[in-house]
Amino acid sequence: MFDIPYKRIRGGVSAPREFFTSAVSCGIKNPKSDRLDLGLIFSERECTSHGMFTSNRIKAAPVRITQSAMRATPIQAIIANSGNANACTGPEGMRDARTMAKRAAKLLKLKQRQVGVCSTGVIGLPMPMQRIEPKIDSLVEALAPKSGGDVARAIITSDTHEKEFAISYNFEGQKIRIGGCAKGAGMINPNMATMLCFITTDAMIPQDCLAKGVDHAVQNTFNRISIDGDTSTNDTVLVMANGAAQNKPFRRNSKACKVFFHALEFVMNRLAKAIVRDGERVTKFITLNVQGARTQNDAKKIAQAVVNSPLVKCSWNGEDPNWGRIIHAVGYSGASVKEELVDIYFDKKIACEGGLKANTNPDVLRNIVRKKEFSITVNLNLGNAEYHMYTSDLSPEYVDFNRSEYAYWMQARKDGFID
Amino acid sequence: MFDIPYKRIRGGVSAPREFFTSAVSCGIKNPKSDRLDLGLIFSERECTSHGMFTSNRIKAAPVRITQSAMRATPIQAIIANSGNANACTGPEGMRDARTMAKRAAKLLKLKQRQVGVCSTGVIGLPMPMQRIEPKIDSLVEALAPKSGGDVARAIITSDTHEKEFAISYNFEGQKIRIGGCAKGAGMINPNMATMLCFITTDAMIPQDCLAKGVDHAVQNTFNRISIDGDTSTNDTVLVMANGAAQNKPFRRNSKACKVFFHALEFVMNRLAKAIVRDGERVTKFITLNVQGARTQNDAKKIAQAVVNSPLVKCSWNGEDPNWGRIIHAVGYSGASVKEELVDIYFDKKIACEGGLKANTNPDVLRNIVRKKEFSITVNLNLGNAEYHMYTSDLSPEYVDFNRSEYAYWMQARKDGFID
Repeated sequence: MFDIPYKRIRGGVSAPREFFTSAVSCGIKNPKSDRLDLGLIFSERECTSHGMFTSNRIKAAPVRITQSAMRATPIQAIIANSGNANACTGPEGMRDARTMAKRAAKLLKLKQRQVGVCSTGVIGLPMPMQRIEPKIDSLVEALAPKSGGDVARAIITSDTHEKEFAISYNFEGQKIRIGGCAKGAGMINPNMATMLCFITTDAMIPQDCLAKGVDHAVQNTFNRISIDGDTSTNDTVLVMANGAAQNKPFRRNSKACKVFFHALEFVMNRLAKAIVRDGERVTKFITLNVQGARTQNDAKKIAQAVVNSPLVKCSWNGEDPNWGRIIHAVGYSGASVKEELVDIYFDKKIACEGGLKANTNPDVLRNIVRKKEFSITVNLNLGNAEYHMYTSDLSPEYVDFNRSEYAYWMQARKDGFID
Repeated sequence: MFDIPYKRIRGGVSAPREFFTSAVSCGIKNPKSDRLDLGLIFSERECTSHGMFTSNRIKAAPVRITQSAMRATPIQAIIANSGNANACTGPEGMRDARTMAKRAAKLLKLKQRQVGVCSTGVIGLPMPMQRIEPKIDSLVEALAPKSGGDVARAIITSDTHEKEFAISYNFEGQKIRIGGCAKGAGMINPNMATMLCFITTDAMIPQDCLAKGVDHAVQNTFNRISIDGDTSTNDTVLVMANGAAQNKPFRRNSKACKVFFHALEFVMNRLAKAIVRDGERVTKFITLNVQGARTQNDAKKIAQAVVNSPLVKCSWNGEDPNWGRIIHAVGYSGASVKEELVDIYFDKKIACEGGLKANTNPDVLRNIVRKKEFSITVNLNLGNAEYHMYTSDLSPEYVDFNRSEYAYWMQARKDGFID
């Protein structure tokens, strides 16, 4: 789109200038563990910011607090924990989320509403504030440049590793940096997921312009991934721009602005794909392209039906180039379809042509689904609309992994932090 | 509703008077197997009949043929096979489905359009007509009373056992019999499934009246079951009424008619539940009740979101009384929800009260989900609308079972019945 090279840089959310980060261990999920579970991102400079939040009607307390705060003022700090989602926790949960923001704000000399607060983890348990609150002081004291990786580690739950990514680029003599970190793993579906993503940038960009760019980038990235079709109560994307790059502020619709949006989407796309690749017990990464639909809405319906079909996902796990299950999901998607026009490809090899088995050697198709990453293209041959999504297989191990949190609850009871 | 006792009787679809059945083995899926895979149901008397068909836009050839035939005339015979779905088979598949109906019709001295034809099994393979066609003669010759069980056995695929059920009842001095058989197993979701169900009755009931009763009964039974959220290309419910009971024909809206509808729904409900209980690698049978919704549509949206959530279904498999995952599915269902009013019960024990963890001892809840069958009730406390569904857990074994049909395809290739 733009012929501007991105340079990959280190530091995740601390890569952009004048962002400071820290993380500590509170033992939120397990009092005996010393893994990092509370992180902080802070800019001394005032920021413009924008947030996008779960579409689930059951919203965790921190989501409600942060969403409402950001309607009033931009944030310039984020405090985030893993191990407890602070969801379905009632007025007490609201008080706890406010306490986290307030305590951090006081120490950072900000107003409470200038601090975003995020939580991810178990639903329905009260926050162990007796373990969290005392650690906020040391969290603020520990703030340092270049330690973004600690925040990335502090927010993961069943993820197998932290996910961060940062780039810089030059435009009209000015260097802009964008960094981000994210967590995902389960409950991953469009309209965001059990997903947290924090993006920082040193670009100077007006509030309304940033909001537009973030909306667009999220639609094309985090809203196009699906692991298990579940949409969580806590999904949040927060973006802060502190202007430390001292660029000429982007004007709306300027080329500088478009270049920035493109770079922002590039960073989000990398993080979104990393979430799918690190999905719970995932063995395959699939790019699903729907082409030739009458409308984009039809293309989207088909993509969602295919990526959410357990039978289709099972066949990917079994390395079975099963186009029959794909076309049957296409058929029940609710989109306009003419069976006799449907083509289905594995990578570039045709498996189904005009609704019928194509002549491609099955071994060729089999070798494609044996790869760790491949693409599937469904062409309806009805129009020009397209949509794509990133998704994974469904493994017996995923089911096994998600069978029971009961043991955890029993431990929590024994530890005395629930009745 | 009506104080009329139903008597359970033997014979499935052959229980009602003057219905004849037979089944033979063609080796449709596997030429070396001698299991029954082609069945026939026949009434010498003319019938009234009604069919309901898959909502999938990709429709198998037999679905198209039968749907269009029944628009013109009632059927009085059904020929049905398992082992091959005759779906995604193009003009050749249409020819094959027509051939099956035509050949049976000729031998039964009927018109082709008086014979319904149904198939279930693998998608995308041509029908092995060279093995099916020669067997239709012996199929017709074998017609006998009281052999409904053979048809029930001939239509199953990955089901572990045949499913049939029949009752009789007396009303105003007349005895009416209703019998049915069904197959299910995978791809089970509302708007029918990879499901065949044949119902016979000796009631004399006008065509329009029968259609109305069947529609209503299917909405309340087969459209309320979900195993894996997939809706297949072949789902069909066919009902034939031959009038052999020689009752006074039911008048529309008469009590006799309502009593018959109730009995019809009773039979379908038993078969629908039997399909869920025999779902692929299912270990639990769950009745999900949604109550207190603003509209029935909202109640339905919530029921569908909960029964299709992989995370909820995994937790049932793990015998984890996890109401957090249930409320999160409630939240993303798209229905009107007030978090602070939501109550969730396992059987009659409250697990979540006003959106928060209730005080019920977790061991009590745990013992409920340990049972093979239990109910979950979600009360939104917003209105009076209700909806219920029957569903199952999702097991690692289900995923494993559905990983690959590739070995089967390779065998089919080796056997020379595909390229």
